Amino acid sequence: MTSAGISSFNTTMAAPVHADMFTRLVALRCHFHEHPELRFQETATQTTFALTSLTNPVSPRRTLPVAPAQVRPLLLFASSCLSSAGLVVNVYGPTTTTTRDGLRCIAFCGDMDTLPITERNPSLAYASRIGGAAHMCGHDGHMTLLAGFACFLQRAALANTCVRLLFQPAEEGHFGAVQMIKDRCIDGVDELYGYHNAPFSLGSVHDKPGAIMSHGSKFTISVNVPGGYSSAPHQTAVTRSSPLGTIVVALQSIASRNVAAAESAIISIGTIHGGEADSAIPSTMRMTGTGVSEAGLPLCASEDFSYYLQQHPGCFFMLGTVEVGEAQNRQLHSDTFDFNDKVLPLAVRLFLEIAQHRLACELFSPVEMAAIYTP
Amino acid sequence: MTSAGISSFNTTMAAPVHADMFTRLVALRCHFHEHPELRFQETATQTTFALTSLTNPVSPRRTLPVAPAQVRPLLLFASSCLSSAGLVVNVYGPTTTTTRDGLRCIAFCGDMDTLPITERNPSLAYASRIGGAAHMCGHDGHMTLLAGFACFLQRAALANTCVRLLFQPAEEGHFGAVQMIKDRCIDGVDELYGYHNAPFSLGSVHDKPGAIMSHGSKFTISVNVPGGYSSAPHQTAVTRSSPLGTIVVALQSIASRNVAAAESAIISIGTIHGGEADSAIPSTMRMTGTGVSEAGLPLCASEDFSYYLQQHPGCFFMLGTVEVGEAQNRQLHSDTFDFNDKVLPLAVRLFLEIAQHRLACELFSPVEMAAIYTP
Repeated sequence: MTSAGISSFNTTMAAPVHADMFTRLVALRCHFHEHPELRFQETATQTTFALTSLTNPVSPRRTLPVAPAQVRPLLLFASSCLSSAGLVVNVYGPTTTTTRDGLRCIAFCGDMDTLPITERNPSLAYASRIGGAAHMCGHDGHMTLLAGFACFLQRAALANTCVRLLFQPAEEGHFGAVQMIKDRCIDGVDELYGYHNAPFSLGSVHDKPGAIMSHGSKFTISVNVPGGYSSAPHQTAVTRSSPLGTIVVALQSIASRNVAAAESAIISIGTIHGGEADSAIPSTMRMTGTGVSEAGLPLCASEDFSYYLQQHPGCFFMLGTVEVGEAQNRQLHSDTFDFNDKVLPLAVRLFLEIAQHRLACELFSPVEMAAIYTP
Repeated sequence: MTSAGISSFNTTMAAPVHADMFTRLVALRCHFHEHPELRFQETATQTTFALTSLTNPVSPRRTLPVAPAQVRPLLLFASSCLSSAGLVVNVYGPTTTTTRDGLRCIAFCGDMDTLPITERNPSLAYASRIGGAAHMCGHDGHMTLLAGFACFLQRAALANTCVRLLFQPAEEGHFGAVQMIKDRCIDGVDELYGYHNAPFSLGSVHDKPGAIMSHGSKFTISVNVPGGYSSAPHQTAVTRSSPLGTIVVALQSIASRNVAAAESAIISIGTIHGGEADSAIPSTMRMTGTGVSEAGLPLCASEDFSYYLQQHPGCFFMLGTVEVGEAQNRQLHSDTFDFNDKVLPLAVRLFLEIAQHRLACELFSPVEMAAIYTP
């Protein structure tokens, strides 16, 4: 944990102060990038967020008009889903009731896990310190957005409401959302919102009614042969057709020869591993990959946020991060990817605007919103 | 080291005693199979052989007729090529000269190194105890033959001769023979002999004048692309053609479309490794393999024994190990290979017959030879 990562976020609302706030958020993002945690192991990440979000509200706090006698103080309540390394943070407005059950609750989700990829960014000062684990999908940025959102939220709260922050583990193919649902993390939620950074133009927002992403599935193919001398393949009969290469090439014809032009399907191989000696045909080659299919979507990728939306209404959108002519790679899952911090102010304002709209109130004035982000 | 592996080889020449001798040699072979050593690390192997060969001659010793006054005792002299983990053992007959320089010297070679392969024999009691190292080319048997040969040799020696045993490291693609030559291990040698077990009928011997094996070379191919999201291959331009699969398949056309029918060439891939996450197109895939080429040879494989034969005359031959209907795999470099111990008596007799022939003497009578091995 870097000192910059957990230093105070206490600020006032003047514009230069927001610049400082986002500088601190970027430092937090870099901290998480440097110290990634794999699926269902996001415990240090979780702890850092609990510390950050609970202790660093944007000040001064204010409450929206409620009869003073009925008001209980603003409360930020964090509960950890230990079984799944997830973290739930409830930001309650002042309440006029004795119980918080039944409050209108809007949830915002950010994923915390890294990909099992070794980072190969050539000169990133905060590159992953851990081999085989790196934030090559920008979840470090997604988490940081939630932290920043929490800090701003505490500055203004609407009576008798709850904004729930879902720090979710294991999005990358391991269904952390399903685990969060099992752990009752979205019980009492009325609506859910989330976003993903995407390799579109910086600041562009992409969405549409209905599905916006694809159905994804994973596959594993093992090619098992007797193995033997590299120079005697005829004696290991099954290798006669060089099956691995043929399978790799043939996999591409599944999409090109079996899917209608108006639809889309993509099959890609993520890993191939087999063999120990240059001079021996290995007895086993194992390849794994993913297949996705869907028609006419903004992004051909998949997200387990959809499991939340099977339970409650809500929205998931894409936020572009690519700047014209920049050298940094923004292609998700590339081992030279990095999240673009410049999208954070827009993302914070988007979440705040959504909260205002769905809670039917004004948490920040238009002038204050513009101080957070102006296109 | 198993106790069976280094127990005494002192025997008499009766036939049942030879059976016991070969039982002990098999135990030694199993010991080496169980404790493999990779290229240029064959030090424990070397030490065990030095102990075994120096201390366990077949008794009683006898010397061929030489005037008694001129005779110095039979001497077995081992010298270690420490720099290369090789071992040289000179079996001197009694000498009538004050120096051993210039004695007629016939060398026999056996390789000691293992392949970097993890053994997958399903139920071998003496399977390799070391992951990523196993005697899947039968060098355990080749070494054991030399040890047995040494024991028999000490039983009978011809005056003013030297039989040199070359325990060679790093045959598997790392040119241990070249290192042995550099270490002056074949200085003073007149002729050299060696053999390799091969997946031909048990007891069959294969050879011809000139080259009997192939020219081999290794290759490495790295496929480097930007990498990225599995479901967005169009954004990582170089992957459009699924290059790895295409290369694997296309490699086969090198042999089939570029080599005359009367000649032979085989290109095989030994290893492919790339990728860490199922859902990411990896930025690097690396494959290694071998190519061999030659025309009309008994076995399309390669051996660094050829480097010895560039220096001195000699012969290298193949000895078949495959029994009809047996379950055990005898295909070299397969991860379920095992050397067939039944070939050891024939191999010992072959080496003894070669020594007799090239030293123009009778070390063992025809009856004694038949007691060692009869087809």
